[in-house]
Amino acid sequence: MTLPSCPLPLPDSLDEDALVTLAHGGGGRLMRRLIEDVFAAEFDNQWMREGHDGAILEALPGRPVLTTDSFVVSPLFFPGGDIGELAVCGTVNDLAMCGATPRYLTTGFVIEEGFSIADLRRVVRSMARAAASAGVQIVTGDTKVVERGKADGLFINTAGLGFVRDGEETRPSRVEVGDAILVSGDVGRHGVAVLAAREGLGLETDLLSDCAPVAGAARALIDAGIEVHCMRDLTRGGLATALVELATSVDLCLSIDETKVPVIGAVRGAAELLGLDPLYVANEGRFVAIVRGADAERCLEVLASEAQAASRDALTPFAPALIGEVRQAPAGRVLATTTTGAERLLGMLSGEQLPRIC
Amino acid sequence: MTLPSCPLPLPDSLDEDALVTLAHGGGGRLMRRLIEDVFAAEFDNQWMREGHDGAILEALPGRPVLTTDSFVVSPLFFPGGDIGELAVCGTVNDLAMCGATPRYLTTGFVIEEGFSIADLRRVVRSMARAAASAGVQIVTGDTKVVERGKADGLFINTAGLGFVRDGEETRPSRVEVGDAILVSGDVGRHGVAVLAAREGLGLETDLLSDCAPVAGAARALIDAGIEVHCMRDLTRGGLATALVELATSVDLCLSIDETKVPVIGAVRGAAELLGLDPLYVANEGRFVAIVRGADAERCLEVLASEAQAASRDALTPFAPALIGEVRQAPAGRVLATTTTGAERLLGMLSGEQLPRIC
Repeated sequence: MTLPSCPLPLPDSLDEDALVTLAHGGGGRLMRRLIEDVFAAEFDNQWMREGHDGAILEALPGRPVLTTDSFVVSPLFFPGGDIGELAVCGTVNDLAMCGATPRYLTTGFVIEEGFSIADLRRVVRSMARAAASAGVQIVTGDTKVVERGKADGLFINTAGLGFVRDGEETRPSRVEVGDAILVSGDVGRHGVAVLAAREGLGLETDLLSDCAPVAGAARALIDAGIEVHCMRDLTRGGLATALVELATSVDLCLSIDETKVPVIGAVRGAAELLGLDPLYVANEGRFVAIVRGADAERCLEVLASEAQAASRDALTPFAPALIGEVRQAPAGRVLATTTTGAERLLGMLSGEQLPRIC
Repeated sequence: MTLPSCPLPLPDSLDEDALVTLAHGGGGRLMRRLIEDVFAAEFDNQWMREGHDGAILEALPGRPVLTTDSFVVSPLFFPGGDIGELAVCGTVNDLAMCGATPRYLTTGFVIEEGFSIADLRRVVRSMARAAASAGVQIVTGDTKVVERGKADGLFINTAGLGFVRDGEETRPSRVEVGDAILVSGDVGRHGVAVLAAREGLGLETDLLSDCAPVAGAARALIDAGIEVHCMRDLTRGGLATALVELATSVDLCLSIDETKVPVIGAVRGAAELLGLDPLYVANEGRFVAIVRGADAERCLEVLASEAQAASRDALTPFAPALIGEVRQAPAGRVLATTTTGAERLLGMLSGEQLPRIC
């Protein structure tokens, strides 16, 4: 992404009703116009202005942490968010789950010919807003355009670089028997909000996606001196899939009480209607924290205070909960106590529950 | 991308004739099977094995350098390379152009439902091979699957993290009047090779893409004590566009002798046939180096020795060349002396010359 001004006359500024053409991805003057008018206008910083092949950054105060996600959500705009906000939050959150402070993002756009410049601008503004709110800078990017019918409007990739200080890494190998399992808020809002926005489903709800950066809450736990062993944000596959992955990874039993997992009425109702289990529905602003057992109550307090500060939907604020603990056996399994008091083993999703949810 | 083994029976290993389904991107068991069988098998390292949300890396010995590119080349396989090799080389090369030592890559896949697992494996193997040859590790990734007709087989994003030592940064602001301009080899092979592979063009040639990592050659220049001020790899828009971008960026005149720009016969012939100017045709393994004037000859020697070592096509090895110098005026322009001895100003591509070349 190169930004210096061009000596040859650039095409006129892009009209709001303009559409992206193949030439906007061709590496020439039209691409530069797109970058200047749409991307540089929003992602303004020294690296974008330098217009080099990469961003030469400041040295990091700890170990680098790197992550990436591609976003193909459909529709691009949904109640409570859009693909741009998702693309920033998703990657920021992955860094935060490692105990890292997110710092820099890259972004790669694949745009379908004919996509609206006005929509692109809306998405880019969303990204800029989400980046500012998460305290990260988008320092470099790339734009490709493919022919009509060869993509679905817009796909966005982000990669994130943060840093973690020695001893603050949160990772599966730190999980121990006796650890407490907490969830940062109620689950399933994002999946239901996206489904509600899909045409033809006839699902009426005022529900908004939970899409949000969780880096602040994750940081607050560490700064409060809580011994955080592992964190995992809940995306595709929901809470259940995240727990199953962790259980297999640490080869211990994650035991939870299903009745303690917060699910708001609107999500529970929609899930019943659609035949979905809320434990498997996607989230984009919730995470599981596995902390030293003795720190459980303190962890809950900090999460509650963060939830209070971050809650976007005053009618249904999200409440964190202590949902279980780590045991020795059955190793590699997630044991859930159901509403009837019975125990069931949670499995991974076997296939596809909700395509293109992120 | 999470890799730990699953306690529940995974689906059988993927057959070579299997196709990617939406469920392979759903976050569940089929996705894990795809990741284990295809990605983890090739990108094997401690970070992939840990299966965390991000990769917690070793501290870097200098300033971090970050870059990204998305790849949508069509066709996916072309003479001399494929989208996987391109995705690694493109990002490694962008880091090298900043004077950085490339170290880690992330990768994000967007796959169209119905894409062949065998082709995916081929691409992933290509990436692993290119990464090994460039000395980088692919430490984390993401896979999304979209419905049939909503993408074009496969798009790949890579982001790269490297480091640069103090004083070794190469960037536009270091370019000075009197600097020499060199190109690391003949130009235009990649664009012509990809075009030749497209159906219906009837372009017959034995030409291979120049797709290759250039980090070794860039490093060799710096290690030889050459005062390298700026480097730029030549991708979309070719040599001319890279020079025009640099000229505007540094607000000086880049003066080149067109007759000194190496173009092999097969490229020149194909370009004439297709009505293309080789100076504007894409490359994926060539770069421009702008170095202190006094270092020009030494720079040429080092580039020649690197070209000799790296040449993939014994019949037509690529030769670097000293093609021009930096002057004061006309500021912000690229002045080219043509074969007739006349001078012309090079402009940027006005639109799209060769869509989906990378």
